[in-house]
Amino acid sequence: MHAYRTHNCAELRASHVGETVRLSGWIHRKRDHGGLLFVDLRDHYGITQIVTDIDSEAFKAIDGARAESVITITGDVVARSAETKNSNLPTGEIELRAREVTVQSQAQELPLPVFGDQEYPEDIRLKYRFLDLRRERIHNNIVLRSKVIASIRKRMIGQGFTEFQTPILTASSPEGARDYLVPSRVHPGKFYALPQAPQMFKQLLMVAGFDRYFQIAPCFRDEDARADRSPGEFYQLDFEMSFVTQDDVFNAIEPVLHGVFEEFANGRSVTPAPFPRIPYRESMLKYGNDKPDLRNPIIIKDVSDHFVGSGFGIFANIVAGGGVIRAIPAPKAGEKSRKFFDEMNDWSRQEGFSGLGYINIKGGEAGGPIAKNHGPEATAKLVAALGLGPDDGVFFAAGKEADAAKLAGLARTRVGEQLELIDPNTFEFCWIVDFPMFEWDEDNKKVDFSHNPFSMPQGELAALETKDPLDILAYQYDIVCNGVELSSGAIRNHKPEIMYKAFEIAGYSKEEVDTNFAGMINAFKFGAPPHGGSAPGIDRIVMLLADEPNIREVIVFPMNQKAEDLMMGAPSEVSPKQLRELHIRLVEPQQKS
Amino acid sequence: MHAYRTHNCAELRASHVGETVRLSGWIHRKRDHGGLLFVDLRDHYGITQIVTDIDSEAFKAIDGARAESVITITGDVVARSAETKNSNLPTGEIELRAREVTVQSQAQELPLPVFGDQEYPEDIRLKYRFLDLRRERIHNNIVLRSKVIASIRKRMIGQGFTEFQTPILTASSPEGARDYLVPSRVHPGKFYALPQAPQMFKQLLMVAGFDRYFQIAPCFRDEDARADRSPGEFYQLDFEMSFVTQDDVFNAIEPVLHGVFEEFANGRSVTPAPFPRIPYRESMLKYGNDKPDLRNPIIIKDVSDHFVGSGFGIFANIVAGGGVIRAIPAPKAGEKSRKFFDEMNDWSRQEGFSGLGYINIKGGEAGGPIAKNHGPEATAKLVAALGLGPDDGVFFAAGKEADAAKLAGLARTRVGEQLELIDPNTFEFCWIVDFPMFEWDEDNKKVDFSHNPFSMPQGELAALETKDPLDILAYQYDIVCNGVELSSGAIRNHKPEIMYKAFEIAGYSKEEVDTNFAGMINAFKFGAPPHGGSAPGIDRIVMLLADEPNIREVIVFPMNQKAEDLMMGAPSEVSPKQLRELHIRLVEPQQKS
Repeated sequence: MHAYRTHNCAELRASHVGETVRLSGWIHRKRDHGGLLFVDLRDHYGITQIVTDIDSEAFKAIDGARAESVITITGDVVARSAETKNSNLPTGEIELRAREVTVQSQAQELPLPVFGDQEYPEDIRLKYRFLDLRRERIHNNIVLRSKVIASIRKRMIGQGFTEFQTPILTASSPEGARDYLVPSRVHPGKFYALPQAPQMFKQLLMVAGFDRYFQIAPCFRDEDARADRSPGEFYQLDFEMSFVTQDDVFNAIEPVLHGVFEEFANGRSVTPAPFPRIPYRESMLKYGNDKPDLRNPIIIKDVSDHFVGSGFGIFANIVAGGGVIRAIPAPKAGEKSRKFFDEMNDWSRQEGFSGLGYINIKGGEAGGPIAKNHGPEATAKLVAALGLGPDDGVFFAAGKEADAAKLAGLARTRVGEQLELIDPNTFEFCWIVDFPMFEWDEDNKKVDFSHNPFSMPQGELAALETKDPLDILAYQYDIVCNGVELSSGAIRNHKPEIMYKAFEIAGYSKEEVDTNFAGMINAFKFGAPPHGGSAPGIDRIVMLLADEPNIREVIVFPMNQKAEDLMMGAPSEVSPKQLRELHIRLVEPQQKS
Repeated sequence: MHAYRTHNCAELRASHVGETVRLSGWIHRKRDHGGLLFVDLRDHYGITQIVTDIDSEAFKAIDGARAESVITITGDVVARSAETKNSNLPTGEIELRAREVTVQSQAQELPLPVFGDQEYPEDIRLKYRFLDLRRERIHNNIVLRSKVIASIRKRMIGQGFTEFQTPILTASSPEGARDYLVPSRVHPGKFYALPQAPQMFKQLLMVAGFDRYFQIAPCFRDEDARADRSPGEFYQLDFEMSFVTQDDVFNAIEPVLHGVFEEFANGRSVTPAPFPRIPYRESMLKYGNDKPDLRNPIIIKDVSDHFVGSGFGIFANIVAGGGVIRAIPAPKAGEKSRKFFDEMNDWSRQEGFSGLGYINIKGGEAGGPIAKNHGPEATAKLVAALGLGPDDGVFFAAGKEADAAKLAGLARTRVGEQLELIDPNTFEFCWIVDFPMFEWDEDNKKVDFSHNPFSMPQGELAALETKDPLDILAYQYDIVCNGVELSSGAIRNHKPEIMYKAFEIAGYSKEEVDTNFAGMINAFKFGAPPHGGSAPGIDRIVMLLADEPNIREVIVFPMNQKAEDLMMGAPSEVSPKQLRELHIRLVEPQQKS
């Protein structure tokens, strides 16, 4: 018989009754029922019930071991009686009558219980992560993460992608977020940087002719933590393809994302491919942002025209002044009390906006100050244009276009939540496309890049040479699921002459481009294919699938919000010898006076 | 028709003749044959021959583009005539008659040709790695690496392992090689370290109950480069299992290694599982080291007894003084000239040894000074004991046991190479087992750990309490292929009381153990399963399969031997602002006087 186990703790069934077997695992729970001691023995795979007589040797060994001690039990599989069968447990038809018990490892008193559901402070959980990880929910999350990544890999390889490991010790980049730096021992005064993303490497892989690259890539940004952003490191499904149009990118990755979400949806529905493709400007209008949660059925409409010369002077003036009025329908909200509408208005003010107007319709009667001042006929027209029903409400966000759009977007989400319009059992994907290439920088009174300067402008060089820069769109796209931006991507600009021209429009000289982006632009001068890609965030995908709002619940050994690993004690002080070898010295932080 | 391609450059066959297709790729080679221009168009997948008339528009476009420019060709698939078919090329039955050519990207003059086999200096290759990677051999190596890793992953998952990503920003470890450090911005004066290996994390995963972990894990050591070691980062197949004996580890990983090597052996043979298991002491005797190349049929024998009181006084004295004589048979070397034997002796002296004696047998007659002095009868007995044939030679390494074993091992390799006894078409695996737990530290006149202090001693606590420490073996093992150590591994010591005792034997107090290994020993106090694992080196596996002696040939973007990335310009200087944020200052290296 094997020294530790003949089966794991999820394996035994009624068909094993009568066999002598050996199990190993952790003491999950002990229950004393008069003359019998019951133990739930737990391992990675599941739980099996052990039973011992209090007169037996086995009893003494188990009785002397605390919860979470590791034991090995040899015994006989016996059938449970009908009334003690546990249909919630795969092994619930049987129990193991212990004959022999070996304690492999005694547990001390626990700082954190494993059995049970109570919440524990995060610092205790992270310090004793090896205990926290034994708890069912987090254990399952981590296994889910692993399965999701394995599934993504399988699907990417199935789509003809090849995974390469790009360097982790690389060069500091002038752009983007803050780099983590690594002092060089061999080259005094010089530093490596950890990659914020393998962007340049993946583009160079395309220049090197590899065609379809992907990587479950570790990325590093020295930024402060948020609920959906871990300090330090995170993972993305980094991919890039050559000789492709934007549609080719979508067609390659949609089956992967759809397939992975379907596989782990657990009854939830997933947008079938092709995912909706929503132009940026349409998204800003209809959803008030560029990462719409399409589970929310509310669609924002521009109703500025309705308020030209309206009796509701505030809106009339806003429209006259070049502003806009955006309507956020609130289905069936007419049944709500006035408090609902007033609280929405208060909330908008707390968010720093000037307020949220509304009309509430009850039994077909439009009420509230806007309806009153706007007049019955105009209101009826507005209500008809919005397609509102006899008991619907509608909110209005008014002001400069960007502000009104933003407020409308936030109000759309809040109304959706309050009216419980958001289906929690669905994953709604979309692409946001046609981002503008340039935008007007009001501070510096100049045209600047609006998102990524390295995306290919639609229309290529001809567009740059002939169109108003603010009308030029880019082959740039975001993939969004349930209001979460999973990633940005683009068809890249692989032509130096177009890059020089695009930068010229944003006010940069050829020399500046050659200096700041030497690596990329030089590589493009030796035969570069058209290429594009994206990089959906792995952590965010797993958060969505695990339905966890906090990223630390889907990472096996996360840092806390202060970028500390409480279990390993990182970061920590290092020896003077180590600093000497790296040619650096510490600087005492200045005292705040 | 797709903007860039309807097929890739390896796809077209005779069955496509008559179709109008579009291909994109790099101009691999142009050949002007009178009125026709032939172009080998290359992409990731292969090569297709393009042909244009010199009168055509297509000709002008291609003629104006340098080698390695990227072009898109639309044209008609035509059959090649019988005499121009190329059976070496999958597309060799057809060619593409160009109708339309678009130059996607003009190549400048190349610093490094892509077509052809000539060697180029490494600094040029690494600086223009994106061109170097287009060359067939290195392109294939990198694709092989990717396939090997994907195959390993598939096989590990098939064996019930789950992949987890352990942290890359972690704590500096007091043991082992030199850490790469990362200064913390948030915690002045403190540093993260990049992991030398996820050893502690994988053991904590076992304590957390995950059962079977693996990871294609990036590891970081700030050590100088060697041919088989990259500066900076490298990858290992890190794995760990719970509730296992040493044999369970072997049984889990042998099918993975055998399967991967078989898959990519390309006609070479691979040791079937189970791999030979060779005790450390046997390996030191028979092969002169603990990483034997079993392709070499030579087996070293101890012949000390034969020289007790021998007429060959040097050996007799060595044996009398407690030394040993090791024989290295050299099959059929008797046919070699005396020069062969003398050169072996010279070589051993260059290596710092005192020399290599020999007997050469020609037609059954033993010759050379050792045979002469040892006497015909004793020599005959020795020759018989060694099983030497009538034209074999034999070398002798004599001295203190460790020195003689080392020289014998080196001589075994050299003789095997010189006599061409090493079959290049086979992968010979073995496990080296039963490493001693402790060794005598002659410098400090004390017992010390011989390899890994955290391995489980065979016999556990009882062995430590009752046996001579130098007789205690550990559950520690190496996996070796063709003389390359792929990794060390062990059944870990998961019991604090055994750990304290083992350290006590090596002269360390409980307090020292508690201080230096706090993380691990504390975790083991909350219920730790018996566990073990190993971590075969990915780069070395790929080097073996690709038959590349230099690790930089199997890494997509390697650093050079001075730990520089010549393409990205890493490491590099950083801004004073970056240093300020990290609370560090540079120290000028001291001038060497």
